[in-house]
Amino acid sequence: MLGHLDPAFLALLPEIVAMLRAVYGLSEGVTLPLQATGMSGMEMGLLSLTEPGDVVIVANAGFFGNRIAQLAARHGARVVEVTSPWGEVVPPEALLEALDAHPEARLLAVVHAETSTGAQYPLEELGAALSGRETLLFADCVTSLATVALAVSEWGVDFAYSCTQKGLSAPPGMSPVAFSERGLRRARSCPRPVPFSFDIELLLDYWVKRPAAYHHTAPILQIYALHEALRCILVEGLEARWARHEAAGRHLRTALQERGLTLLANPAYQLPHITVVRVPEGIDGKRIQQRLLEEHGIEVGGGLGPHAPPMWRIGLMGVNASVEVAGRVIAAFDAVLADEHAHARSSLEEPGSIIREH
Amino acid sequence: MLGHLDPAFLALLPEIVAMLRAVYGLSEGVTLPLQATGMSGMEMGLLSLTEPGDVVIVANAGFFGNRIAQLAARHGARVVEVTSPWGEVVPPEALLEALDAHPEARLLAVVHAETSTGAQYPLEELGAALSGRETLLFADCVTSLATVALAVSEWGVDFAYSCTQKGLSAPPGMSPVAFSERGLRRARSCPRPVPFSFDIELLLDYWVKRPAAYHHTAPILQIYALHEALRCILVEGLEARWARHEAAGRHLRTALQERGLTLLANPAYQLPHITVVRVPEGIDGKRIQQRLLEEHGIEVGGGLGPHAPPMWRIGLMGVNASVEVAGRVIAAFDAVLADEHAHARSSLEEPGSIIREH
Repeated sequence: MLGHLDPAFLALLPEIVAMLRAVYGLSEGVTLPLQATGMSGMEMGLLSLTEPGDVVIVANAGFFGNRIAQLAARHGARVVEVTSPWGEVVPPEALLEALDAHPEARLLAVVHAETSTGAQYPLEELGAALSGRETLLFADCVTSLATVALAVSEWGVDFAYSCTQKGLSAPPGMSPVAFSERGLRRARSCPRPVPFSFDIELLLDYWVKRPAAYHHTAPILQIYALHEALRCILVEGLEARWARHEAAGRHLRTALQERGLTLLANPAYQLPHITVVRVPEGIDGKRIQQRLLEEHGIEVGGGLGPHAPPMWRIGLMGVNASVEVAGRVIAAFDAVLADEHAHARSSLEEPGSIIREH
Repeated sequence: MLGHLDPAFLALLPEIVAMLRAVYGLSEGVTLPLQATGMSGMEMGLLSLTEPGDVVIVANAGFFGNRIAQLAARHGARVVEVTSPWGEVVPPEALLEALDAHPEARLLAVVHAETSTGAQYPLEELGAALSGRETLLFADCVTSLATVALAVSEWGVDFAYSCTQKGLSAPPGMSPVAFSERGLRRARSCPRPVPFSFDIELLLDYWVKRPAAYHHTAPILQIYALHEALRCILVEGLEARWARHEAAGRHLRTALQERGLTLLANPAYQLPHITVVRVPEGIDGKRIQQRLLEEHGIEVGGGLGPHAPPMWRIGLMGVNASVEVAGRVIAAFDAVLADEHAHARSSLEEPGSIIREH
């Protein structure tokens, strides 16, 4: 482990920035990994780009859309929520209508990959429709970066944030953020006293300006891991990586549907790498999750938050995005569900046995 | 690597909290490691405990005292700075005078171990003097946690923050924070919309409340490392650890002074584990740092910020706090300085040689 001002360590930083530019599809603006959680990336964007009283339009069709709305309101925005049921996306036309009703809106926020439902937002289409408007496009890319097609600059995204532990397949601990030139200008002119921890100007002084200005002590090992993860992504190639996620997810969903299971997301907006399965009637979803974890070493998510219907959330991301891993998930579900059915049958038979005892 | 909601992983969190309580000397109040930089720990405290217009008294005798003042002002505090020259500490009496002039002050902030100068603040004495006052005691413990005696509750500290990479000897990446009960009550009643990322109530819902409520994805590997680092500290014993830091630092300073080098800090307030040496006249301090790093693999710090006099900052912390490592540092300085002197002599002779050529 080197020191955070060691020349050999500092040499990694511009390489990470250059690789992040490629992975985000950033041809203008700036990017760097914030040393904080993905949620802090979301918060950095809201604090950097809005001031109290600003109108923020939020597409809310799941847990993370809802969280953007909550955080924007927490920091004083007048939030206009446009909602759709979980599993759907808020149609771009509905967002444009909201924007016509609030042309002064500072931000329009969407979740590119809504982890809580498995739905993918048509971000490119929305970006094109917003062309020529003053409102900034704010995109949660926590689960979409390096898993599905993304071209921040070409699509007109002004602020994007992500994490290290999903598509990038590094350990959790940092939040890569990206600002367009327009987003950066807004951040620079924003009158709110943004936290020092989230001040893009000061962070650029460490990450990009040379000689580097001390801001904080960088998380050395996270940065080694992120550097290597980004290198692996670019060696594989972004399009190959997206295709791998697509193939793995398709294999999984076909097998699940063959077994009569129902998916939550509208098929038109199904994410390749996040498959959300409705828990069938009469089955204890949490018990199945626990058995998958304990007996098969496979962690499947449940519903996020109080509004979630009973669900299993299966992510095949990064190194796990393969047909082989999808097959292991299916085999584990088969084993656990078959055993549960057998138990259910035997416990149905028991009352009869008890009657026979009498 | 486990998932951040895996039961086996969640079981580590209360163990970390319990170990942090012991290391901080916390018999009431709460502690947890923030997933962010030490600077974010500082900022969390200021945002959680103050609101715009509050008076904050800051003892400023170095880079980090100055940074507290800057961050407090950034967030709207009316900052009363009480300064002393670098290497000194602001006398507790001077702070009490400032407090008498501003009895409404919300916080009184000091840096327990001023990394930029090597001076240790008499925190216990100050805490005792503040007894019975309403003003909260805010202490930067970034470099003091697990290196020098610290008893947050007994000494009356209301908010403390630290980092993982110094006395704890884990990789950089988290900031353990501690609130007294009184500090926590203040945070709970503070009208400012603290960032979601820094909201102690929400963080406690993940770290302490069970079942854990999702707040963010925890940095799994950092947490494994922190768990192990804390365990090692408690196995060694805090008093043994403090004594080890004291012995290593004393060995280093004796040897440096035998070589005619001068220390920056007032000896009455010398930190055991941070030794700041004034660069002698006529020597290029940065060049020596570079040679120590390149030729001996030893990183010595320079002055922090534009107000720092030319200095070498030598930290012997965590696993490096040993007489043996102190000896390696001395040997490296000896080698580099002897070589520099030899070069300086030979280049002084050169003009004579040139004259002889003519």
